[in-house]
Amino acid sequence: MNVTDVIEDRRSVHDYTDEPLDDETLETIFERVKHTPSGYNLQPWEFLVLRDEENQERLRGHAFDQDHVTGAAAAVVVLGNTDPAAHAGRVFDDWLDKGYLPDAETRDGLVDQVEGWRERAYEENRVWSTRSTALAAMTLMYAAWEEGVASCPMEGFDPEGVKEEFDIGAGYEPVMLLTLGYPEEDATDTEKPRKLRRPPEEMVHFEAFDPEPHAEPAAEVTEAAEADATASDD
Amino acid sequence: MNVTDVIEDRRSVHDYTDEPLDDETLETIFERVKHTPSGYNLQPWEFLVLRDEENQERLRGHAFDQDHVTGAAAAVVVLGNTDPAAHAGRVFDDWLDKGYLPDAETRDGLVDQVEGWRERAYEENRVWSTRSTALAAMTLMYAAWEEGVASCPMEGFDPEGVKEEFDIGAGYEPVMLLTLGYPEEDATDTEKPRKLRRPPEEMVHFEAFDPEPHAEPAAEVTEAAEADATASDD
Repeated sequence: MNVTDVIEDRRSVHDYTDEPLDDETLETIFERVKHTPSGYNLQPWEFLVLRDEENQERLRGHAFDQDHVTGAAAAVVVLGNTDPAAHAGRVFDDWLDKGYLPDAETRDGLVDQVEGWRERAYEENRVWSTRSTALAAMTLMYAAWEEGVASCPMEGFDPEGVKEEFDIGAGYEPVMLLTLGYPEEDATDTEKPRKLRRPPEEMVHFEAFDPEPHAEPAAEVTEAAEADATASDD
Repeated sequence: MNVTDVIEDRRSVHDYTDEPLDDETLETIFERVKHTPSGYNLQPWEFLVLRDEENQERLRGHAFDQDHVTGAAAAVVVLGNTDPAAHAGRVFDDWLDKGYLPDAETRDGLVDQVEGWRERAYEENRVWSTRSTALAAMTLMYAAWEEGVASCPMEGFDPEGVKEEFDIGAGYEPVMLLTLGYPEEDATDTEKPRKLRRPPEEMVHFEAFDPEPHAEPAAEVTEAAEADATASDD
């Protein structure tokens, strides 16, 4: 499928068929995901893929009981490794082998530099890891759509609860959840009109940064209605 | 171009031709970018696009003097708005208008909830903004490639210096820099073999999180060699 079509047609889907996601399809999708760029090519991402109904129930318990977590063929916990140096040795060995670096000293210097990042404030490494891992999550959604597999990104969950439930080590940051599956033909998500998007003339600034203030309606705020709205996008 | 080809063929490019990036091409690219999903569809991204040589020089001064910042047709500062509620009013009005919400009370409750996020620690909103903005940056790289425009993502820069230089308000977080331009036919980036990528069997974990420890060569670390290596990916 044309990349423009994938970008424009992709919708976040909550209603999936019962068709399972087989190993081969997941392999195909993640073979694409691995090509995602990352800072220094350090690839800090990990994916916990839950297809087992019981495990999906466990996840749902920490995801505001959103029913597509168990209704999807797979629920994925997208994790960022907050240790920048986790793969530094092999990554820079590879740079040296392939002629991206002039000599072993330079390679060692890079390893040293990235190992030094371990001393940064945890929040810095959390932002660092989120940045590259989100790039991979975007690739995942596009690669899945190409295979006919819809997705729904979610940030509405309790990260600490998820970490504890699945015994995820302290150094890993749940960046988002994603559900994956084949969309119902009449999924409500795809039947409704597309949601508002900010146009290029608003989000792009040439030569100087001049964001326009946007008049927000003075909402009469009532009690936070829970509704069935979720923190997923459209 | 097929999305799989774009994902697999895209390379980060440092060598660009002198061909400028015209308004129409940028418009086409950003018309795609706007479709990126984001948490609650809040679209916290902004893009400062520098085509003017003098402005590129100013940016380069805060980006470790990397020469593709001025050699590219455009250098882009990708910014995340750390105010989650910046666009909440219109976004949830739109949900209500299009039948995604049952009533105005629910809409008001959502605005209230997102406005409440303003009280979170700044670092939480920084992570929040980085997550969605990185998704948009990935879309930008793919959409650009489709138009024949190569890119290079960079995290090697001084964010505070960039903010000060371009008078960027305190609430905006520079998430990454991207250079954009038409690639030189013999760009060294595309001539060399592709860099190592972690394979799916390493990064995907089924039903339980069991990252394998990776033996890193015990590097004899020398002084940090600056070399011409940058924090960009492959």
